[in-house]
Amino acid sequence: MKKGRPFVLFIVLGALFYGEGLPGRLHAAPHSAETQDCLSCHIQATPGIVSDWQQSRHAQVTPAEAMAVEPLSRKVSASEVPQGLKSHSVGCAECHTVRAEAHKDTVEHNGYSMYVVVSPEDCRTCHQEEAVQYQRNLMAHAHDNLMKNPLYGQLIQAINGLQTLEGTSLQTLPPMAHTNEDSCLNCHGTDVRVQGTVSRDTDFDTMDFVVLSGWPNVGVGRRNPDGSNGSCASCHARHSFSIEVARKPETCSQCHKGPDVPAYKIYSVSKHGNLYGALKGQWNFSNVPWVVGKDMKAPTCATCHVSLLVDEAKNVVAKRSHAMNDRLPWRIFGLIYAHPHPREARVHTIKNAKGLALPTELDGSWVSRALIDADEQDRRRATMQAVCSACHGTQWVHGHWQRFEKTIEETNRMTKTATDIMVQSWKEKRSRGLPDNPFDEPLEKRWVEQWFFFANSIRFSSAMMGADYSVFDNGRWFQSKGLREMEWLERMGSLQSTRR
Amino acid sequence: MKKGRPFVLFIVLGALFYGEGLPGRLHAAPHSAETQDCLSCHIQATPGIVSDWQQSRHAQVTPAEAMAVEPLSRKVSASEVPQGLKSHSVGCAECHTVRAEAHKDTVEHNGYSMYVVVSPEDCRTCHQEEAVQYQRNLMAHAHDNLMKNPLYGQLIQAINGLQTLEGTSLQTLPPMAHTNEDSCLNCHGTDVRVQGTVSRDTDFDTMDFVVLSGWPNVGVGRRNPDGSNGSCASCHARHSFSIEVARKPETCSQCHKGPDVPAYKIYSVSKHGNLYGALKGQWNFSNVPWVVGKDMKAPTCATCHVSLLVDEAKNVVAKRSHAMNDRLPWRIFGLIYAHPHPREARVHTIKNAKGLALPTELDGSWVSRALIDADEQDRRRATMQAVCSACHGTQWVHGHWQRFEKTIEETNRMTKTATDIMVQSWKEKRSRGLPDNPFDEPLEKRWVEQWFFFANSIRFSSAMMGADYSVFDNGRWFQSKGLREMEWLERMGSLQSTRR
Amino acid sequence: MKKGRPFVLFIVLGALFYGEGLPGRLHAAPHSAETQDCLSCHIQATPGIVSDWQQSRHAQVTPAEAMAVEPLSRKVSASEVPQGLKSHSVGCAECHTVRAEAHKDTVEHNGYSMYVVVSPEDCRTCHQEEAVQYQRNLMAHAHDNLMKNPLYGQLIQAINGLQTLEGTSLQTLPPMAHTNEDSCLNCHGTDVRVQGTVSRDTDFDTMDFVVLSGWPNVGVGRRNPDGSNGSCASCHARHSFSIEVARKPETCSQCHKGPDVPAYKIYSVSKHGNLYGALKGQWNFSNVPWVVGKDMKAPTCATCHVSLLVDEAKNVVAKRSHAMNDRLPWRIFGLIYAHPHPREARVHTIKNAKGLALPTELDGSWVSRALIDADEQDRRRATMQAVCSACHGTQWVHGHWQRFEKTIEETNRMTKTATDIMVQSWKEKRSRGLPDNPFDEPLEKRWVEQWFFFANSIRFSSAMMGADYSVFDNGRWFQSKGLREMEWLERMGSLQSTRR
Repeated sequence: MKKGRPFVLFIVLGALFYGEGLPGRLHAAPHSAETQDCLSCHIQATPGIVSDWQQSRHAQVTPAEAMAVEPLSRKVSASEVPQGLKSHSVGCAECHTVRAEAHKDTVEHNGYSMYVVVSPEDCRTCHQEEAVQYQRNLMAHAHDNLMKNPLYGQLIQAINGLQTLEGTSLQTLPPMAHTNEDSCLNCHGTDVRVQGTVSRDTDFDTMDFVVLSGWPNVGVGRRNPDGSNGSCASCHARHSFSIEVARKPETCSQCHKGPDVPAYKIYSVSKHGNLYGALKGQWNFSNVPWVVGKDMKAPTCATCHVSLLVDEAKNVVAKRSHAMNDRLPWRIFGLIYAHPHPREARVHTIKNAKGLALPTELDGSWVSRALIDADEQDRRRATMQAVCSACHGTQWVHGHWQRFEKTIEETNRMTKTATDIMVQSWKEKRSRGLPDNPFDEPLEKRWVEQWFFFANSIRFSSAMMGADYSVFDNGRWFQSKGLREMEWLERMGSLQSTRR
Repeated sequence: MKKGRPFVLFIVLGALFYGEGLPGRLHAAPHSAETQDCLSCHIQATPGIVSDWQQSRHAQVTPAEAMAVEPLSRKVSASEVPQGLKSHSVGCAECHTVRAEAHKDTVEHNGYSMYVVVSPEDCRTCHQEEAVQYQRNLMAHAHDNLMKNPLYGQLIQAINGLQTLEGTSLQTLPPMAHTNEDSCLNCHGTDVRVQGTVSRDTDFDTMDFVVLSGWPNVGVGRRNPDGSNGSCASCHARHSFSIEVARKPETCSQCHKGPDVPAYKIYSVSKHGNLYGALKGQWNFSNVPWVVGKDMKAPTCATCHVSLLVDEAKNVVAKRSHAMNDRLPWRIFGLIYAHPHPREARVHTIKNAKGLALPTELDGSWVSRALIDADEQDRRRATMQAVCSACHGTQWVHGHWQRFEKTIEETNRMTKTATDIMVQSWKEKRSRGLPDNPFDEPLEKRWVEQWFFFANSIRFSSAMMGADYSVFDNGRWFQSKGLREMEWLERMGSLQSTRR
Repeated sequence: MKKGRPFVLFIVLGALFYGEGLPGRLHAAPHSAETQDCLSCHIQATPGIVSDWQQSRHAQVTPAEAMAVEPLSRKVSASEVPQGLKSHSVGCAECHTVRAEAHKDTVEHNGYSMYVVVSPEDCRTCHQEEAVQYQRNLMAHAHDNLMKNPLYGQLIQAINGLQTLEGTSLQTLPPMAHTNEDSCLNCHGTDVRVQGTVSRDTDFDTMDFVVLSGWPNVGVGRRNPDGSNGSCASCHARHSFSIEVARKPETCSQCHKGPDVPAYKIYSVSKHGNLYGALKGQWNFSNVPWVVGKDMKAPTCATCHVSLLVDEAKNVVAKRSHAMNDRLPWRIFGLIYAHPHPREARVHTIKNAKGLALPTELDGSWVSRALIDADEQDRRRATMQAVCSACHGTQWVHGHWQRFEKTIEETNRMTKTATDIMVQSWKEKRSRGLPDNPFDEPLEKRWVEQWFFFANSIRFSSAMMGADYSVFDNGRWFQSKGLREMEWLERMGSLQSTRR
């Protein structure tokens, strides 16, 4: 026995007592007849789904009960929930049939009009505020923001296009749909479309199934068959829909770990991530509202970016917002440069002076009309700093932000230098720039890494004080080395061209 | 106290009750006199080993008790266990002396014929089925599969050979034995050989010890002094021999994390790994059989590849198999290309048309006689899909596999393009190919990374939906960049050769 | 409920009993009036800090109580603690005011002379032995060891200097202070200096705050405003000052994960790290002394390098030492070569034959007078091997160390080969070496990676048997490839120079 393990003893003489709402305990709320019907087969057909759901709040608490708690603890934000849904659990039928008429993926299934792809519009029935806020995120539009930007289309082509050798030169074919789904759209979200239906023998009967392209997918900007976009299951995964899972940083790591956006990797070597890794087994990730210092001793991604936070006296430190940019003065994910956060979530509609769908010019200046102004930046910075200040003194918070914002400026200047080399190469025709693909030659690929990998790493690292990534792990070492290698490549290119 | 922590209260009035078989509790089964004798010194000589073992099932349950449980829960697969071993714990003497005559590493040790290196043949005494199945894995032969393949011998030489500068050229010496043991053979398994004995002063007495080369090692294909191969301790680590440890993915990460075979890294950013990381503290990793959805809400490596799985009604979802290829239609670890799984585990005996010990030709076509046929692939795919289907609907499973198998094909085509550049370079003598080492020049090293790092990453990522690794983290970004750099290097090489 | 979860039931009829000192439980020791005063505002101003502290031993145990326990369990090493501090908790005032006169960062704050930056000299009041031992670490002097070494100054310049394109050539400006603080000094420690005071409106009143440069920072060699160096909070993080956190490897990962010093990454794929990851929830990280095999089944960083270890009979396996080099015969972090550990912690004072502040010459020979001799190496090796031997047999330990020390030698020889290429390039003026910056050209940067990334990875991997990192993840694959690319770059450079 590990000493020092926290536990509480409820003594009930002569009886076994189970605490209310404990995970793993099945306090089923009454299920609807429809859901009971689903369960009768699916407990055998997909036992993992059923067990997962049975342990969820959805199976254990009715919407009516969920709406009765005090405001700060409420998880159901809709002021009204349809009468027919109020008094039983939120089960199979409640999610997979409630808006059947709006869903192109609806099929007849054992007498029910059932659809596969539950969307944020379905969840909105009870979680209205979150569904609405979520649409204000760039993430909610991640599919379109990528696929409707012609410049990014060239980037995808340069990455995902199938290459073949013709003579001594590489040729690139357009990427296949499945390749994009298997790579970029895995996170950005696919376009889920109904291709028809198919009949299959199952353990129960011969049954019709809808055939979907772009499926499976839980990308954040998924285009759904009901016309909506996004997927709540990106973070509230699978059939537990757990707030605990969404609050833990492993969830965010799914899409925020790579060299382009290494947030999780950096978090995990920051002091915050260090404490999370060491102590998470002792923290409370289910409590609503979430009490700083008591429920957790260091923040996770959700703490700083999403969650409703209070102190022990229930004073609100930060309001919950599923529009994560409410706390973001800067967009540090450089495209090509870091910049004030965009005003609108559908960033593919921004156009810079050259007509490119980018929030900055090639020289680093901002497309200001598309970006929030300094006042709005101040408001958002203050919102985020209120979270910092729950655990850090004034000097700490001010010093940290000052250093971070200087680093944003510095990395932009280093990106400008890389872009200067690139522009020179394009001008002197040693590389082929726009309208040709500006991302497919060796020098161009180095240039992309300068801003997409190294400048991003350094900024995320600065934001979270995750030291290694600001120096040697895709940080300044690689940023400075990359510049020197770009200079060298240009020199070799010039040598080569004089030989032709 | 973390609210929501699952716990159960057994109330026993006026008494302290301990549940059976709880880790950390010492319910010692009776120990043999021989083991008692070992313990009397070793509790002081190697206290960590003794404590570890005392907390194991081996110390707490006799084979007779272990064999008495219902078939689905049995961990001892032998139908008969030697009479003398049945009624006491499985202790020091039971493992380290039971087959002394078969072990070249046996020495006299305080009156016992004792050996150091316990092998799968020793474990087979009780765990017969697992020991036999394990030999059907490529892993069980990982030492020979590497060391008896002359082509791989050239790869080892190119990696591990000591290099010196002679004039302006690098020379490579053959790798030293200790270097191979410290690198490749750490995972593949060393060849453990007896070099003699040595006398050493200890806290107890002057004693003889056997001197072993290739030791320490817990590689999966270790050659043991009793002539057997493999090591159960690779996964059932050290003296707990715990099923919990083997079922957790950290165990597999030891050898499956690097850029060549990034399974664990990708798992950890997949939704499965996300849920494991967030919730593992609440799951049951010791239950046999393992109940999907109840004992765990997302699979670990073992769930999909090894374990006996049931639903809550104890219907079998998948049978246990220590021959992991039973569920593997494809070998996605490309050498040089991905291909249907090999029929036989000793893959170093395969020969392609050029006489190389490879399961494919250089152009990507398969050495079909050595690989399983489409029917066997269908059977294995169905076995694996049964696991998927425990938690995912039909559309999800079919869509996932279709996308995955397209990605296998696509990565093979990209590898073919890289190989085309390589073959051209060899043909035009800009690189020196076979019989010279085909892995030691700059272009050759780029070529190796195309299939060994990038194509592998993309395929593992596709298999587990771990998005980052399919694009930016050793994925398609590096695959397409690598091709462009190979093309560029060839162009520079041709420039250089015209200068000579 | 997870079966097999360890728990103990203390039955106290009719009453709720809480065990002593359980984390999460608030057994406040009496607080001083001054601390009570601080808390009255700060419970609202910085609730996270207050909650964190309330759950710490400092809030729950008085120094007098802490000093009364048996010697092996004592955490307070001072033989005498000032009378005024003995009988109440170690609170805000006790740490932030006790040495106000020694602190340049002291300000008047609501009637108290309070300082922000608590230093090892402050902690020394109770933890004397640890504070003294810590100063014997290279880490304690990490700021000066980096910043006072002119050669490392050139390395910093090459990494952190802002680069601009002038014509077709890159120019490098000196690094900005904030850049160094955001990168190297994040781990090495900043120089925290008082810049003045500033008046700010707060929720309570208008107040004066000290303005600090180099703040925030918890780097190990931080220069503090009281003239001391180091930060106990580097490992005993924030206001819990927890031994549990310091013993967990996530803490060390903050600065020991990057490619230069990948200790944590390698640990995490070693068998030790595998077991830690899989089982840490069941281990005891708070027990003092720490019982091998019982409190933990595999070591963390602290187990091998710092902690007081005993067996179950309380025989001492290893004495606690906050001078971590007590167990280190080698310094495997190559600068440029691995070498016997330096005698003195202030390594910037070492000079080699060329006058460079390095512990080795460029050809790999050691600056012996500055390094420990073979006898001292033997003593330190024996101290470390005593830890190994708690869980491993004699053969295992000897075989492991023999292999490890051969790898040290081998990597030094490979670094020598890289340096030979580099020196040749400098000699023939294809690269510009000293007195010019020897770290800023493409070939030079490759050379740095040979020893700083690849040789280091291989050695750390060998030390902990973390296989992947010795071969494919920044290991021997990259070491051998790097040499071939250096050779190729030199050939291209020679081609280029004949063209001029």
